[in-house]
Amino acid sequence: MVKIGVVGATGYTGVELLRLLVTRTDVSLDVVTSRELQGTSVTSLFPNLRGQIDLNFVKPDTPELGHCDVVFFATPHAVAMQSVPALLDQGVKVVDLSADFRLQDVAVWEHWYKTKHSCPQLIKDAVYGLPETNREQIKKATLVASPGCYPTAVQLGFLPLVKAGLIDTNSLIADAKSGVSGAGRKAAVDYLVGEATESIKAYAVSGHRHGPEIEQGLNQFSEMPVNLTFIPHLTPMIRGILATLYASVKPDIDITVDKLQSVFQEFYQNEPFVDVLPKGISPATRNVKGANHCQLSVNYLPHNGRIVVLSVIDNLVKGASGQAIQNMNIMLGIDETTGLNSIALLP
Amino acid sequence: MVKIGVVGATGYTGVELLRLLVTRTDVSLDVVTSRELQGTSVTSLFPNLRGQIDLNFVKPDTPELGHCDVVFFATPHAVAMQSVPALLDQGVKVVDLSADFRLQDVAVWEHWYKTKHSCPQLIKDAVYGLPETNREQIKKATLVASPGCYPTAVQLGFLPLVKAGLIDTNSLIADAKSGVSGAGRKAAVDYLVGEATESIKAYAVSGHRHGPEIEQGLNQFSEMPVNLTFIPHLTPMIRGILATLYASVKPDIDITVDKLQSVFQEFYQNEPFVDVLPKGISPATRNVKGANHCQLSVNYLPHNGRIVVLSVIDNLVKGASGQAIQNMNIMLGIDETTGLNSIALLP
Amino acid sequence: MVKIGVVGATGYTGVELLRLLVTRTDVSLDVVTSRELQGTSVTSLFPNLRGQIDLNFVKPDTPELGHCDVVFFATPHAVAMQSVPALLDQGVKVVDLSADFRLQDVAVWEHWYKTKHSCPQLIKDAVYGLPETNREQIKKATLVASPGCYPTAVQLGFLPLVKAGLIDTNSLIADAKSGVSGAGRKAAVDYLVGEATESIKAYAVSGHRHGPEIEQGLNQFSEMPVNLTFIPHLTPMIRGILATLYASVKPDIDITVDKLQSVFQEFYQNEPFVDVLPKGISPATRNVKGANHCQLSVNYLPHNGRIVVLSVIDNLVKGASGQAIQNMNIMLGIDETTGLNSIALLP
Amino acid sequence: MVKIGVVGATGYTGVELLRLLVTRTDVSLDVVTSRELQGTSVTSLFPNLRGQIDLNFVKPDTPELGHCDVVFFATPHAVAMQSVPALLDQGVKVVDLSADFRLQDVAVWEHWYKTKHSCPQLIKDAVYGLPETNREQIKKATLVASPGCYPTAVQLGFLPLVKAGLIDTNSLIADAKSGVSGAGRKAAVDYLVGEATESIKAYAVSGHRHGPEIEQGLNQFSEMPVNLTFIPHLTPMIRGILATLYASVKPDIDITVDKLQSVFQEFYQNEPFVDVLPKGISPATRNVKGANHCQLSVNYLPHNGRIVVLSVIDNLVKGASGQAIQNMNIMLGIDETTGLNSIALLP
Repeated sequence: MVKIGVVGATGYTGVELLRLLVTRTDVSLDVVTSRELQGTSVTSLFPNLRGQIDLNFVKPDTPELGHCDVVFFATPHAVAMQSVPALLDQGVKVVDLSADFRLQDVAVWEHWYKTKHSCPQLIKDAVYGLPETNREQIKKATLVASPGCYPTAVQLGFLPLVKAGLIDTNSLIADAKSGVSGAGRKAAVDYLVGEATESIKAYAVSGHRHGPEIEQGLNQFSEMPVNLTFIPHLTPMIRGILATLYASVKPDIDITVDKLQSVFQEFYQNEPFVDVLPKGISPATRNVKGANHCQLSVNYLPHNGRIVVLSVIDNLVKGASGQAIQNMNIMLGIDETTGLNSIALLP
Repeated sequence: MVKIGVVGATGYTGVELLRLLVTRTDVSLDVVTSRELQGTSVTSLFPNLRGQIDLNFVKPDTPELGHCDVVFFATPHAVAMQSVPALLDQGVKVVDLSADFRLQDVAVWEHWYKTKHSCPQLIKDAVYGLPETNREQIKKATLVASPGCYPTAVQLGFLPLVKAGLIDTNSLIADAKSGVSGAGRKAAVDYLVGEATESIKAYAVSGHRHGPEIEQGLNQFSEMPVNLTFIPHLTPMIRGILATLYASVKPDIDITVDKLQSVFQEFYQNEPFVDVLPKGISPATRNVKGANHCQLSVNYLPHNGRIVVLSVIDNLVKGASGQAIQNMNIMLGIDETTGLNSIALLP
Repeated sequence: MVKIGVVGATGYTGVELLRLLVTRTDVSLDVVTSRELQGTSVTSLFPNLRGQIDLNFVKPDTPELGHCDVVFFATPHAVAMQSVPALLDQGVKVVDLSADFRLQDVAVWEHWYKTKHSCPQLIKDAVYGLPETNREQIKKATLVASPGCYPTAVQLGFLPLVKAGLIDTNSLIADAKSGVSGAGRKAAVDYLVGEATESIKAYAVSGHRHGPEIEQGLNQFSEMPVNLTFIPHLTPMIRGILATLYASVKPDIDITVDKLQSVFQEFYQNEPFVDVLPKGISPATRNVKGANHCQLSVNYLPHNGRIVVLSVIDNLVKGASGQAIQNMNIMLGIDETTGLNSIALLP
Repeated sequence: MVKIGVVGATGYTGVELLRLLVTRTDVSLDVVTSRELQGTSVTSLFPNLRGQIDLNFVKPDTPELGHCDVVFFATPHAVAMQSVPALLDQGVKVVDLSADFRLQDVAVWEHWYKTKHSCPQLIKDAVYGLPETNREQIKKATLVASPGCYPTAVQLGFLPLVKAGLIDTNSLIADAKSGVSGAGRKAAVDYLVGEATESIKAYAVSGHRHGPEIEQGLNQFSEMPVNLTFIPHLTPMIRGILATLYASVKPDIDITVDKLQSVFQEFYQNEPFVDVLPKGISPATRNVKGANHCQLSVNYLPHNGRIVVLSVIDNLVKGASGQAIQNMNIMLGIDETTGLNSIALLP
């Protein structure tokens, strides 16, 4: 029985970890932390878990975390980096859902997160937890930086094109639409029903933290450096991300939609959680609500040589907690899909 | 030109007052206050008002309020009572959208609002601002306690029955459904998109502040004291209240649906903002979104002698700011409907 | 391996049956019918099932249904009654999610459904599939009439009170709020986004088909005949039902909220899918979204002797397909909870 | 008093015309047609208009239309073209909200609308009703083809850049997000609450009718032909369009965000309904809900020379009925803003 701790379990990625882990018979949820709610029962906060879990939240710095086999950090940035070194020293494997170990260049990290990094020496050991590109390293990792919603949706959509060298790497545009749960479960006027339903808006137009993370991930597979325009949008729904991705075919390349379709299907043919839709079918975020799947479609516009990729995930599952568990499964050497086969709730 | 001040203009009832007042040619918005946002332009907070208003928020205790003809308080409870006495002394008329002067019994007020009332002596002079029942007193008032969303929807639905003496006053049930804007524009987890959309729940089941206010209003017209069961529900939409009202016909009364229809139509025949629907037609809150109207329907269930009244309003208009302006119009002796004739936005 | 057929699988209860059945290892989905879409793949209509099911829709009168062990009817009323007799003759067990066999009095059925019943002789053999009341008969049944959303939510809420004889059976009011998926997946203007979001309304105020069904179910356990006022409401969300239930305590009964709490907890102590919440906690429909659970709370208002019960279910799971599968499990003598333990998706 | 007829008044653009026209004192609504609902009162379909209009729908080919001064067509494509010639012959001015006269090249029209055009001779006389570009011709027009939602939002955003010759006309991308009311008020499964809320998707990825219309409009002001990638998205809200527009600065042009800001402000400085937001402020569709305004922001990304314009309108107002009335006002020589000054409903 794998003993599991979850730090910062009062947010949406926290409760999603609990939902996905609590019915498993091969792992046990032993420690669930919250600074504000220590002493409170988990089910009083999350009544969907009634009958499934009989734990109280404990304080984040509890020594019990050191007795876990795996600890998840479902915390804001700059929290995990405080606690991870001691846990690793005790032999605990860590999956960090926050941004603390995602960027390899600590200066870039400190620029975007406006914080001094407290353990930069760990960054090079941390493995970026996108299984579709880094599975082998994840197997051997003790610290996985599990990517979040935008980077997952955007990278999975662009990767086959970048790796095949088909597109002008200066032409990449990601117009991404996220449900409001992406902003987390914190008291903030901007995400009230009266503010964020019946409306859509772009934000962080001049630059968003996830831009450099996506470029870093794509550059791993690109001959030429990737220059991305990334515009996120707050969309009036709870869950889901749709990334509409635009790129121009390199001038000297002869492409057809059938060839593109093959490129994508071959790239993902062995991936359990990436599903390339049949030619001409576009995905909707509802197709993956509650599921760990990414659905992709690829389109070619011959009149201007542009490729349009549509990529959908559930931001809280493949874009957060499901992917974190996928990483844990790989780290533990068990079937990668364990506990992640539930089907999207439609409607 | 009537000079107007709005205290606490950063909430939803505040912006709704501005929306309804700013295009009028007979009034001028002179002072708009906010403790947190003083010095900020109103349009930076409310971009729907761009091009219409060129004011900055000023501090709530500005002496400029004393130069206004009318001041609206769109504040939480226990704020207006601090400032109203001085304004009245300066000859300013006050319309209070908060609860401070709605309950005639100060002990009841202090029980429900858990605060010591700072000027109980003013309560008896304050007029309860439901024009459909108190128009004559509002004309002469200097301080109007304008009722909010639940009390307006529920009282307008029950009043014709209570006044006609048709129903057992112990049998009243109000099952009321409110949009989330009723909770105001304040940072609170409970009203996030991820919490309050795709879900409905009852709250304050054991008792809600508006219960005694409704009973007080109905008792004004009832021979027997009214005993109300009032259950509010948080409903996944921005605006609107639907009150589904249940009452039992008195045992000795012979009633038909046609007779009930007549009772309602006659009761409201001269009311500009209460619309009794034709027999058999039920209202939806969308019918009145953005408008100052109440739509009512009355139904009779012969198999158990129960009357079901459906009452809809926009909680921010007839349930708050529209009604407050209606009260101001009456206090100023101008046409009661001035500025309140806009049509509901459908869809 | 239990062979399963689903008739009318293109609606919301159809896809929900598929979602809940397709990952089970003890049953096989063999036949999935649709009149309009025969020949089309199931996943082209329901892309959430991609990778899980490799069937095409076939015509509803296919002889293959006769080779199934269990056939579900997820059809409008008056469809199942045409096909059920032949299937029963072939030894197939039938779970009917439609209304065809729910009402024991055929005249009442024909009144409300405005259709001549084609096999009234089967009605008396059909078992009403509410496991919490009829588990023993369901075990022996070959034809189960599985109750729908409103009757399930309302009966589960009132049953402990009715059976204990605590309430005046003439005082029952069910104010029920349903998500729009309850209206099914059919082209109709009334359920468009532009019509049914950002609004709430009551409907069928003068009488609804589910009223007599609920009364029939409650009368089974009541000394005195139940007279119910049932008002359904269309609520702007996809899934979920909240029934707010009102009843008056019998004049001669001495009750407390603690006693009521005990009555409910004891009544449901062995039920795997009915969860009585702790005293003072109200349920929200989000607590059960996608799950087969009913959450209940019971409240007592001492000032007027009224009991208020709050009952929430997912209309498509415990209110339809989940309950139908629960019935199948019971009919087959396997663990009643098989395949029904997934946790509600929150947020 | 200007006599007005509305053909096809049962849709969302129809009711929006009525909402905006019915309170005006300078026009009278004389004829309102509907094929299916002739004989029915307008308010029975649109209860938000109760007390404002006392008309029944009449048949579309009523001779009364010939007695109107202005007739609006709020019909699907291929309807107006049947009736317009006769109305023009009778001296009636026509504002067509449908697509029948928007494309100057009849072959292109027939390709995209898959219909033979019945009066191609009128196309050259029809004036494209975007006041911001064609005001002078609209003044003299008898037939105005009023543009719809996507073309209005996209053209207003790109026009200043195209006219100033700042951008590579092959680089244009319009990623547009529309509320569901854009699909109209017709019974269709795709736009049910259960299908189109809690989800976002792209559609018509390989080509959409509005693409050539937008290119035609921009080419009017462009030295080089415009090649547009236009991807529309169905967004889970009732009203609103956000167009996120991408273009690359021409290689030889030296640009800054301040210069871009000036270009936009000067371009629209005299426009009553186009509002260029201050630098760094992004619009949200809620800012214009129910209003005839377009809000724009322009951004420059120096690291890749890309301009990002954000353009929001209410698809039913500036994107349909408001703009049609703006055109009527211009045609009649009255103040262009008459009846169009209502403020967006926020929240």
